[in-house]
Amino acid sequence: MRPNTGSNSVSILDDVEAIRRIDLGNMGMMISSFPALLKKAVELSRSLVLPRDYRSVKEIVVCGMGGSAIGGDLFRDLSQRKIPLSVSVIRDYDLPRHVDERSLVVAVSYSGNTEETLESFKQAYGRGSRMVAIASNGLLEKACSKLKIPFLGVPSGYTPRSALPLLFIPLLKLAEEIGFPLVGEGELDEACRLIEKYNSKLTPETPLSQNPAKQLAAGLHEKLPIIYSLGHLKSVALRYKDQINENAKMRAMCDQLPEANHNEIETWEKVDFKEILHVVFIDSRFKNPYVAESIGALVSSIEREEVGLSMVKPLGETMLEEVLSAIILGDWLSYYLAILRGVDPAPVRLINNLKKKHEERTKYLEKFEEWLAETGEDNRKT
Amino acid sequence: MRPNTGSNSVSILDDVEAIRRIDLGNMGMMISSFPALLKKAVELSRSLVLPRDYRSVKEIVVCGMGGSAIGGDLFRDLSQRKIPLSVSVIRDYDLPRHVDERSLVVAVSYSGNTEETLESFKQAYGRGSRMVAIASNGLLEKACSKLKIPFLGVPSGYTPRSALPLLFIPLLKLAEEIGFPLVGEGELDEACRLIEKYNSKLTPETPLSQNPAKQLAAGLHEKLPIIYSLGHLKSVALRYKDQINENAKMRAMCDQLPEANHNEIETWEKVDFKEILHVVFIDSRFKNPYVAESIGALVSSIEREEVGLSMVKPLGETMLEEVLSAIILGDWLSYYLAILRGVDPAPVRLINNLKKKHEERTKYLEKFEEWLAETGEDNRKT
Repeated sequence: MRPNTGSNSVSILDDVEAIRRIDLGNMGMMISSFPALLKKAVELSRSLVLPRDYRSVKEIVVCGMGGSAIGGDLFRDLSQRKIPLSVSVIRDYDLPRHVDERSLVVAVSYSGNTEETLESFKQAYGRGSRMVAIASNGLLEKACSKLKIPFLGVPSGYTPRSALPLLFIPLLKLAEEIGFPLVGEGELDEACRLIEKYNSKLTPETPLSQNPAKQLAAGLHEKLPIIYSLGHLKSVALRYKDQINENAKMRAMCDQLPEANHNEIETWEKVDFKEILHVVFIDSRFKNPYVAESIGALVSSIEREEVGLSMVKPLGETMLEEVLSAIILGDWLSYYLAILRGVDPAPVRLINNLKKKHEERTKYLEKFEEWLAETGEDNRKT
Repeated sequence: MRPNTGSNSVSILDDVEAIRRIDLGNMGMMISSFPALLKKAVELSRSLVLPRDYRSVKEIVVCGMGGSAIGGDLFRDLSQRKIPLSVSVIRDYDLPRHVDERSLVVAVSYSGNTEETLESFKQAYGRGSRMVAIASNGLLEKACSKLKIPFLGVPSGYTPRSALPLLFIPLLKLAEEIGFPLVGEGELDEACRLIEKYNSKLTPETPLSQNPAKQLAAGLHEKLPIIYSLGHLKSVALRYKDQINENAKMRAMCDQLPEANHNEIETWEKVDFKEILHVVFIDSRFKNPYVAESIGALVSSIEREEVGLSMVKPLGETMLEEVLSAIILGDWLSYYLAILRGVDPAPVRLINNLKKKHEERTKYLEKFEEWLAETGEDNRKT
């Protein structure tokens, strides 16, 4: 079975001109900026200063959607072993009841106008939570300015998904500000250097024969990708899925070990549609030894069924480097999949149509502005 | 494209004898027992009494894997609006650092011998956490008995996935015990009655023409199911996926609103493999009005591509009834999918092989027993 849409042959991946003709929205430029955005994010994060009393919070709650939320997941995975506070990510309108004046609520919306995030922000304000927001613009910036809430402004002009370094790295600084440094300054600089070097191996100018992202894309061309990950890279698989969805407008699945060995593995017993499946397994040098031992069982089940399998070994000596190198590889992978499908990676027509029509009907942004007009710092229940 | 395995025609769903010949492991009996297990769970839960000082915990952490973990997710979704404590579910060996002596750690393992859960249990004990365990047997029972940790023993003889009521309902009692009643006694009894009645509509004896589970299965036969859910039913979609994986040995995807509208929706723009996709949308009467408004966009994108879509409207007047009625429908759905594929639903050969070989190599259970032999109540850092 072939996909029911016209697809390019893999050789297009070495035709830089042809790639440019498909990439009308300039996503290639945006992904290429990943190392520069990383450096920019490190620099910008220095300006994030939080009030002293934020050090007494009981938990960190990151509110965001889509490309603005995934930085929260990566941060949570990294912080699990290092921060004595629970970190949760809320992708919805309503805050859980446990969020109160002792919670640190981080509202992340690249546009600054994401409805769900604004609503969570408003609810957090009503509960007297410690707050901070990250955005390039929009009502989130306006609200922080009026309500005197710490705000980190990041450069605009990217898609939220390509702005990931700007939305993720500040969370590391935020942890440091409340007393829990996750990475040293040197570690961040080192990671920036590694990613800059690695990126040059992944851009369209590097041919398929030497380009791991193009090679991965060639394996996944006209397939349904299944991404497995583990340990501190659990959410990296979700990033791959989301990037494949948005850039290539293509379906993908993700799952994690050790949980997949308790249910998903059964799908490798009597495999339907095996000719369209291709597995990407994102490994880590930091995995728990028992998980390491059980990877073989899943892998051999997949191999026995003769389903395609690509192993990704992220680069780097630190957990952070693994996260960032795995992500930039996946970002380029999703880009090349778009090219192979002949779809312009940058525009997300269905998401934008939905947002527009939704806003016309709910008038949420107007309601938020009205709330803001009526609200002052002194209204807070603290 | 057809699946590459022999499949039965839909008419087999009305042939009770033929169903029995496939269901050698008696999964039909186990799913039929859901209402009885629900009642049993309500009764058993009464015996769960926790020390008074458990009322001062800062969070609830449920540790479990697969069918023993999903009750924790359902509980977390239900508790979001009602409990001022964060609830998290850990499906891994290592506990996050925030788990300490002020955490309530609930170890759930139907067999009582799940390696990941035992390791989390051991770590929680080392940190002086408040603890409670739920199991039918195994080292978890033994450890609780020796270490004087509250333990709820549940009947054995089921698969972990079919024992869900026994592993989920006690969490509601646990919440009540620490001061946060989620449901009233009457509410539980009412739910038991509803589920008993509903179950009789879903069993093999009820013909396809009047059986919503058989009808759903007929729609998903030879397809790749995509399950969407929302609100307090978010984890119900995961339960559907896991049950389809384990009972039917069949692949499935799950996703949630509103997040899916920020990435997944783009996969409905240029749809590959559309002839094998079929969407199941699990709705709720308790959804946030803004989410309600945005469902239409996703649904019309799916319909425009002429991909099959089944809407599930869970029964019941309460959130708990919705959860339970959606789950029993999904359990039967996964059962009928197994029958249509001609696979015996109960055995999970790959999971069991993996566990066995893994244990042979790691000798984890022996190590746990050694730890237990050396450990006493007084060793706790409190």
